[in-house]
Amino acid sequence: MNKPYVIGIDMGGTNTAFGIVDTCGKVIAGGSIKTRKHNNIEDYIDELHGELTRLIEENDAQDKVQGIGIGAPNANYFTGLIEDGVNLPWPTPIPFAELISKKFGIPAVITNDANAAAIGEMTYGAARGLKDFIMITLGTGVGSGIVVNGQMVYGHDGFAGELGHVVMKRNNGRMCGCGRTGCLEAYCSATGVARTAREFLEIRKEDSALRNIPVDEITSKDVYDAAVAGDQIAKDIFEYTGDILGQALADFVTFSSPEAFVLFGGLTKAGDLIMKPVKDSLDKNILSCYKGKVKLLVSELKESDAAILGASALGWEAK
Amino acid sequence: MNKPYVIGIDMGGTNTAFGIVDTCGKVIAGGSIKTRKHNNIEDYIDELHGELTRLIEENDAQDKVQGIGIGAPNANYFTGLIEDGVNLPWPTPIPFAELISKKFGIPAVITNDANAAAIGEMTYGAARGLKDFIMITLGTGVGSGIVVNGQMVYGHDGFAGELGHVVMKRNNGRMCGCGRTGCLEAYCSATGVARTAREFLEIRKEDSALRNIPVDEITSKDVYDAAVAGDQIAKDIFEYTGDILGQALADFVTFSSPEAFVLFGGLTKAGDLIMKPVKDSLDKNILSCYKGKVKLLVSELKESDAAILGASALGWEAK
Repeated sequence: MNKPYVIGIDMGGTNTAFGIVDTCGKVIAGGSIKTRKHNNIEDYIDELHGELTRLIEENDAQDKVQGIGIGAPNANYFTGLIEDGVNLPWPTPIPFAELISKKFGIPAVITNDANAAAIGEMTYGAARGLKDFIMITLGTGVGSGIVVNGQMVYGHDGFAGELGHVVMKRNNGRMCGCGRTGCLEAYCSATGVARTAREFLEIRKEDSALRNIPVDEITSKDVYDAAVAGDQIAKDIFEYTGDILGQALADFVTFSSPEAFVLFGGLTKAGDLIMKPVKDSLDKNILSCYKGKVKLLVSELKESDAAILGASALGWEAK
Repeated sequence: MNKPYVIGIDMGGTNTAFGIVDTCGKVIAGGSIKTRKHNNIEDYIDELHGELTRLIEENDAQDKVQGIGIGAPNANYFTGLIEDGVNLPWPTPIPFAELISKKFGIPAVITNDANAAAIGEMTYGAARGLKDFIMITLGTGVGSGIVVNGQMVYGHDGFAGELGHVVMKRNNGRMCGCGRTGCLEAYCSATGVARTAREFLEIRKEDSALRNIPVDEITSKDVYDAAVAGDQIAKDIFEYTGDILGQALADFVTFSSPEAFVLFGGLTKAGDLIMKPVKDSLDKNILSCYKGKVKLLVSELKESDAAILGASALGWEAK
């Protein structure tokens, strides 16, 4: 018989958030620790275990946790490993699902953070009831989680859904963190927006509030603030970003013909500044047989909750 | 209880091939008619029914056919309709599955031709045992059938898998039959190869056997013959085609991380002339986490059989 709770853990490069979640998808208690505080993974897991044990006891949840679901960068659902932890302070691969499962004495399942967010959205958010959708996470990087026929697409090796590394500029494209050039992520992540700002400020001559900021320190938040205040260059930066993202989404439609895209992450906070150009570009570039059929949604979950909820949803299937 | 036979029908723009298939995937009898001979769909179905009835009687298969599976251009698995028959002589949409089912008194299922080929390859060909693969058909156009987790990807509306219309050239791309520009199909179909030949012959100055053919009459077969005879321009045309296709496949991998691509159709007959540049380009352009993990296979089924077998495999699930 199922127990009434699961634990969701969302490991980010900076913070690790966690929570105890009930069968209705309510986070009944949660907390967070600094991911980078510990030089070795055992100490990190010790702190996580300590914090969660306290939460479990405070909520009278001993022996009531069915499973633990984890979302982490580059985590592989099939192997349980964090395979290549670009932003993590520990050597990889890390058999994280196994380590957590042993420490807690509770079965644990892991997947990458974008997949966890997609599962959260499907179970509790904007994608409830959808069997075919694509989640695009617009944060420091661009991630994706793809759902086909109601199932997460993991691919034969667990690494499906790296849509941030589809090539959007085949000539003279920007260097991407992956070592190649022209990837979607180099343009449509928060970092990509900041890079676009630096390019636009160099090439264009108009006044802009962004010129008051040292050029290497401009963030996507600065671009947002300037755009809201009516700055034309800032608005054009979002236009440019949205146009590229819309072109990418139009291509993605030809793959799985999703009912919706769900956009998620910091960049979506720019609202219509980014969503309108994305929608215009998607409409303009989409193949005619899909026209007017694909919804463009924004995540309905609090950013902090989406990944915990998504990860926790995986906890129900942990064995 | 299941009956021992199914019927597979492969409707192409020119010919319609059909066969009676047993549970082992053997085409025990087959034939074909001209698709374009009839000005209305009822006459076409009458001829098809006549031919198949004769085959059924000759093979003592009356009351032994479990279902009919059909592959046809732009056919929709969910609705049973041929939705937009670009190359067909009849007004669309056509409720083809229903018309066939009524005429024969046997349940019928329809899907598009590339999906039928993918199902054939999964059931009887190069993709046996694979749960995640992508079939790319290189014919007059470029089609695709995507299998994720052992299931055909139909998308929410039945139109998934139009990878021939992913945009490969965002600037100055060739016009595509779909009304947009720069699509994969405009470069990597048989027609695309012929267009590349015309471009290359105009721009380059070397001698070439292809210059003996009126430029508007050059086919991909002519390019193949010239390349086999050592013609440098012809070889470079395949190099160029393969390079673009490899770039596209590298992008497709980020979607579903397939174990293999299965290439199918006329262009694959060029063998290493096309396959080597595709492989080199895929290796060069693929994201590092997928490197060395994706097989590049060529269909193992006779072209005429693959679609009949694939369509027939659908017949088993007709209800």
